[in-house]
Amino acid sequence: MESARTFTSALGDWREDHKSLTTSLADAVREAVLDGRISVGSPLPAERTLAAALGVSRGTVVAGLAELRDDGWLRTRHGSRSVVRLPPRLTERTAPWSVDRGQVAGATRIDLTAAVTAAPHGAYLAALERATGRCATLLVDSGTSTAGLPSLREAVADRYTRAGLPTRPDQILITSGAMAALHLLVDQLHDRRRPVLVEQPTFPGALAVLRGRRARMITSPVTADGWDLDRFAETVRTDRPGLAYVMPDFHNPTGAMMSAAARSRLAALDLPVVADETMRDLDLRLSPSPERHLTGPNVINIGSTSKVFWSGLRVGWIRASAARIRELLLNPLQPPLSPPPLEQLIADELLRDISSVLAERTAQLRAQRDHLVALLAGGDWTYTTPPGGLAVWLRLHHTTAAASTRRATRAGLMLSPGPTFAADRTLTHYLRIPFTATTDVLDHAGRILRESAGAPEAMR
Amino acid sequence: MESARTFTSALGDWREDHKSLTTSLADAVREAVLDGRISVGSPLPAERTLAAALGVSRGTVVAGLAELRDDGWLRTRHGSRSVVRLPPRLTERTAPWSVDRGQVAGATRIDLTAAVTAAPHGAYLAALERATGRCATLLVDSGTSTAGLPSLREAVADRYTRAGLPTRPDQILITSGAMAALHLLVDQLHDRRRPVLVEQPTFPGALAVLRGRRARMITSPVTADGWDLDRFAETVRTDRPGLAYVMPDFHNPTGAMMSAAARSRLAALDLPVVADETMRDLDLRLSPSPERHLTGPNVINIGSTSKVFWSGLRVGWIRASAARIRELLLNPLQPPLSPPPLEQLIADELLRDISSVLAERTAQLRAQRDHLVALLAGGDWTYTTPPGGLAVWLRLHHTTAAASTRRATRAGLMLSPGPTFAADRTLTHYLRIPFTATTDVLDHAGRILRESAGAPEAMR
Repeated sequence: MESARTFTSALGDWREDHKSLTTSLADAVREAVLDGRISVGSPLPAERTLAAALGVSRGTVVAGLAELRDDGWLRTRHGSRSVVRLPPRLTERTAPWSVDRGQVAGATRIDLTAAVTAAPHGAYLAALERATGRCATLLVDSGTSTAGLPSLREAVADRYTRAGLPTRPDQILITSGAMAALHLLVDQLHDRRRPVLVEQPTFPGALAVLRGRRARMITSPVTADGWDLDRFAETVRTDRPGLAYVMPDFHNPTGAMMSAAARSRLAALDLPVVADETMRDLDLRLSPSPERHLTGPNVINIGSTSKVFWSGLRVGWIRASAARIRELLLNPLQPPLSPPPLEQLIADELLRDISSVLAERTAQLRAQRDHLVALLAGGDWTYTTPPGGLAVWLRLHHTTAAASTRRATRAGLMLSPGPTFAADRTLTHYLRIPFTATTDVLDHAGRILRESAGAPEAMR
Repeated sequence: MESARTFTSALGDWREDHKSLTTSLADAVREAVLDGRISVGSPLPAERTLAAALGVSRGTVVAGLAELRDDGWLRTRHGSRSVVRLPPRLTERTAPWSVDRGQVAGATRIDLTAAVTAAPHGAYLAALERATGRCATLLVDSGTSTAGLPSLREAVADRYTRAGLPTRPDQILITSGAMAALHLLVDQLHDRRRPVLVEQPTFPGALAVLRGRRARMITSPVTADGWDLDRFAETVRTDRPGLAYVMPDFHNPTGAMMSAAARSRLAALDLPVVADETMRDLDLRLSPSPERHLTGPNVINIGSTSKVFWSGLRVGWIRASAARIRELLLNPLQPPLSPPPLEQLIADELLRDISSVLAERTAQLRAQRDHLVALLAGGDWTYTTPPGGLAVWLRLHHTTAAASTRRATRAGLMLSPGPTFAADRTLTHYLRIPFTATTDVLDHAGRILRESAGAPEAMR
């Protein structure tokens, strides 16, 4: 912070009528830090100067800063200026602050439309520091796009190999996420004369990619009980899709995990199958026992660091035959979908550390899942406790997803309704409830949900 | 470096028969550092330990390290271990090391197929450090894709405004480079029933994007003298293209700059024009006097940090109407083409520093351009000194680009032949010669070029 003037201009119009001056000031500072208008690590102006610049008494400033200090937003070393920091409760949680805006001013608005997490703060900053050291060498070269940094392709290949699917680095193409991978694969595999088979429900991002390519879609159902492979195989026989997109390892949104038997049957079908394993590492069972990767001559695996580490990393990959990878590199979309070398280095560093990051994150997510499941008990709906992933898939009994989300939004809770996850916009009686909020925020969300969707329409 | 074993394994099979053991060792360390197998900043094992691990005498190790130290690859503080570093001659040049592999073992291979530069080393690392501080706040949120970080959209908009083209932040969409921008714009603007008008020659990356979308292309010529707007307008009238792609500010590969009169006529034509201004800041004139941005109701500007800062940053943008930007955000390709927040912060920090970075880079590039132009004098070819950009566009008199590049490749110089830059694969008598190498390497390249393309076929 260069001066009191810069500081006050970052606060903008900070006075709020319904709050005391002290609380208004503290809240405004918190908001400005979270919005990036005031940098973490920047020193605060002196109290007297600040009071003058803000046009308030020194007492108000002292009280406001005391509130911030008590709440973890300031670090004061004896005899020196206070420095802005993020409170540990924000850096140590998996819930992104935008879900509840860090509860800065009380959780008046809860956004659970996306199932995403914040970065593992300490591990991420440590990985970034190590990556910065390694990046110095890359900076003396051109930095143009490649199939991926050799060390990252190797690290990703090694993880497949250790999980029982032998993989060489030349079978890996690094992309800017799983949806980047899907774009490239649809370009390569989609035959416009034939439909694409997707699960019902499925990931809305994949639906967007396929709709964008004007693919005709046909569906096969997935429930909490899993995949009906008889029906899947029948659909392949009758509708002759040219491509299938599936999520066998913690299906989004149901959280289901494909059985070994279903994997064998799926892999034996005669069509290219893109298996999106973005959620694979979010195994929330107390004793995780991962299934083998879906594999076979027709199977292409895609993965991502977005759910395990951070969406802002934008690093994913395709695992396929080396010949297919070489062909994918000819697509003019590949270079702009190749992530920056620095982000690849961060991913490489984080992957070395993945077990400790995962242990902490899955423990938090498991506690949140269990909390949400307990809150949902006895409502006018059906659900199953998901073994992994980030959400509970709720079937409503007496009201529609549209009506429920409308009511919930009015009460301050935003959710994604079932049709978002359906190629044909059906699933009108389902809701996805992410457990990517802290337990106290889930309590609040649970109350709103019960009022919005938990009882028959007639009872309201 | 954890141990002598890690160090020696990073060197691999380092003995080369035609070199002394000392030089073999020094070269192997240099290569390993440049390939990222040995990190910058890592301490070297003790000489005695290293000698044992490598199976050579301590004298060989001492001599090898002395050679590295003299050459700038080691930093030794009194009484402590030597630490690996990059020599200033590599961090202070704009030539990427892969052009001549840092002349590690004598410039036996010169790769001038691409016109790209290394990063401004010190400025880049400083920007990265500042961006790391700002990134801490972003890590507590979800990091999902947006139209761009508000501060970066503002910084880009401000640069347009200051250059005389008033722009609001909501008119800017941040993309992962100019080609990402072109992909999105072609999706939005290309009408399959109508051809796309491109310059001849033009940037091969743009040709790849348009070929990938199966666009039919028609061309209008650009020479060192500039654009023939009579002919351009005539082509628009007769062939009715639905879209044009042009590079008015330091056209790639000719380096030409569009006149104010041509800008007015082009902007008045009745078709959407994508103006790629990636090279705009590489003004190599002693007294730069930039033209106004190409502008008009049909003009969409795209830009990038790839040529000014570094290709590895992967940050570019689109400037258009706010309504068009909102529509571009609906393309499912937009999220995977949205650069990671950290890279956007680096771009934001670098843009604040752009004048000092540009002053240094353009001075180096100008010297290299002038050196190359002097070398080319008197050859059997025609060229004009380009006012900006990264290359000289050479018209050969008595030999083809294909024959010349074949001969040059055998002598160790790789170049891009004219047809690479032609929508219809013509321009068979042109070569692009980037001046993105150091002057001593350009000397060497000039000799090879003269032998490969400089004299009539019959004289050889």
